[in-house]
Amino acid sequence: MRIGFIGLGIMGRPMAKNLIKAGHELVVDDHQEETTAELVAAGAERGGRPDEIARQVDLVITMLPNSPHVREVALGADGIVNGAHRGLVYVDMSSIAPLVSREVAGALADEGIAMLDAPVSGGEPKAVEGTLSIMVGGDRAVFDQVRDVLAAMGSSVVHVGDSGAGNTAKLANQVIVALNIAAVAEAFVLAEKAGVRPASVLEAIRGGLAGGTVLEAKAPMMLAHDFTPGFRIDLHVKDLLNALDTSHDVGVPLPLTAAVLEMMTALKAAGHGQDDHSGLLRHYETLASTRIGGSPS
Amino acid sequence: MRIGFIGLGIMGRPMAKNLIKAGHELVVDDHQEETTAELVAAGAERGGRPDEIARQVDLVITMLPNSPHVREVALGADGIVNGAHRGLVYVDMSSIAPLVSREVAGALADEGIAMLDAPVSGGEPKAVEGTLSIMVGGDRAVFDQVRDVLAAMGSSVVHVGDSGAGNTAKLANQVIVALNIAAVAEAFVLAEKAGVRPASVLEAIRGGLAGGTVLEAKAPMMLAHDFTPGFRIDLHVKDLLNALDTSHDVGVPLPLTAAVLEMMTALKAAGHGQDDHSGLLRHYETLASTRIGGSPS
Repeated sequence: MRIGFIGLGIMGRPMAKNLIKAGHELVVDDHQEETTAELVAAGAERGGRPDEIARQVDLVITMLPNSPHVREVALGADGIVNGAHRGLVYVDMSSIAPLVSREVAGALADEGIAMLDAPVSGGEPKAVEGTLSIMVGGDRAVFDQVRDVLAAMGSSVVHVGDSGAGNTAKLANQVIVALNIAAVAEAFVLAEKAGVRPASVLEAIRGGLAGGTVLEAKAPMMLAHDFTPGFRIDLHVKDLLNALDTSHDVGVPLPLTAAVLEMMTALKAAGHGQDDHSGLLRHYETLASTRIGGSPS
Repeated sequence: MRIGFIGLGIMGRPMAKNLIKAGHELVVDDHQEETTAELVAAGAERGGRPDEIARQVDLVITMLPNSPHVREVALGADGIVNGAHRGLVYVDMSSIAPLVSREVAGALADEGIAMLDAPVSGGEPKAVEGTLSIMVGGDRAVFDQVRDVLAAMGSSVVHVGDSGAGNTAKLANQVIVALNIAAVAEAFVLAEKAGVRPASVLEAIRGGLAGGTVLEAKAPMMLAHDFTPGFRIDLHVKDLLNALDTSHDVGVPLPLTAAVLEMMTALKAAGHGQDDHSGLLRHYETLASTRIGGSPS
C-alpha cells in the first residue's frame, strides 16, 4: 500500500522502517532532515506538507507528541484534510486525548476521510522489534482494511471500539502502569526502611500475585537507581493529564491516578521530567528520607 | 521429621497434608474436630495443647489468623514456650506484624527455641498444589535446617533477612497486590464510563507493560462481577493495617496504601468484607455511579 508517514520521532522512525520492510511504499515528512534522509536511504520517498502527502497516498499515519499537534496536522491550513480524495484513510497512532480523536475524526468524516485512533504501548524497543500493542478505535470496516498494515508494527492489534476508544484504552493502560510503578516504589521503600533488602523482596514475591511486567521491567531499574528512559516522566504526566481530563468529563473520580500525577509533577518541578517513570521511586525516597539499596542520599 | 502443626484453617489444612505426603510425621492440633479427624485419617497424630505438641516434636509450624493468636500460641500459658526442649525450632507461617514476629522470636530465644517467620503468598489453590511463595525471616542456619520441609509446601522458598523480614516482605507483597487491584479497578471504571468495554481494554493491554498476575487473575472476576474469594477484603484490611503500623513505626509514608485501606474499610462497613479483594471494584463503581459490563446497578 502507498502510505504517508508523518512524525519520525523516537517511536515513528522505527515504525516507519517496519512498514518499508513489510513492502509498503512510504512517503515521509521532512520535518527533521536527518531522520528523513535516513528513511529515504531505507527506501522511502520524501514528502512535503501534510496535504501534499495526503494527496498522493491511500493511507496517512501520524505519530505525534500530543493533541494540538494532531489537530494541526489533520485540520490545519496545510493539513491532511486539504489533501482529501476518494478512499483516503487516516490512522493517528499518537497518544492523545480521546475527545480530540473524536473531534478530529468528526471533522474529517465531513470531508470523506475515515479516521482511526490507534495508539501504541511498548516503547522504543518494541517499536524497533515491530511488537507493539496497538489499540484501535473507529469504524470496524476501516479497521479490517488497515489491520495488516498495523500488524507490520505490532504483535497485538485489537479493535476496542468506536472513535476515541483506542486512546481511552491507552489511558486505561497508562493508569495501570503508573499505579503499578507507584506500588513497587511504595513497597520497596517500606521494606528498605524496615530493614529488608528490596532485592530480596523482589526475589521472594515475583512468582506470586504481586508479579507482573512492571515489576520485572522497572524493579531492577529502581534497585540500580538507573532511571535512563525508557518512558519519560514528562510523557507520563501528559498521559495522566489526558486521563484526568477524560475522567472528569465523563464523571469518574480517579483518586490514586490523581495522587500519582501530583507526585510526578513534583518530580518534574525538581528537574526529573526526563527520567524514566520508574524514577517515581525518588519521590518516595524523598518522603521517607531514605535511599533504596545504598547509603542515604 | 517429626512436626507439630497448629492452625488447620483454609490454608493450614492443605499445607499440613503436603507435609504428610512428603513423608513427615505430623502431630496436629485439635481445635477444630472435623479437620483434625480428616488429618488423622490422612496419617497425622492427634496432639493436645501447644506445649504438649511442642514437647514431642523437632519442629512446630503455626498458621494462624493474626498477631495476637501467634503471641498466645507461642508465649501463652499453654504455649509452645512451655514445651521447650533442646533443638526445638518454631516456624510461624501466619501473616502477622513484623514487630510481633521479632518480639516473639526474642522471647523464645531466651528459652532456647529458634523461631523463623515464614508467611506465604498464593492463597488456597497454591497451598493445595504445594506451590506457595514462602518468604522467610530469621537465622540463616536455622533456615537451612528447615528449608526442605518448607519446600514441601512451596515452589519458592526465599530467605529474605533477619527475624521479622519474612513478614515485612509479605507486607510489601500485600501493598503491591492491593494497589495493582486498585489500578485495574480505576482503569476499568474509567473505560466503562468513557464508552469502551473493559473486556476489550483487557484484551488490548494484557500483553504490554500493564500486564501482570493481578490483571490475569482479578480482571476476569471484575468483568463477571464474581467476587467469590479467593482472598477476602477482611484479610487484606488486616494486612494493610499491619503495613501501616510498620510504616509509621519506621517512618515511611504510604499514601496510596492508606487510601486503598480506607476504600476497603468502606466496603467492610457496607457488608462486603467477605468478598474477594477484587471486589474493590465496587468502591469505584459506587464513586462513579456505574457498573462494569452491565446495566447501571
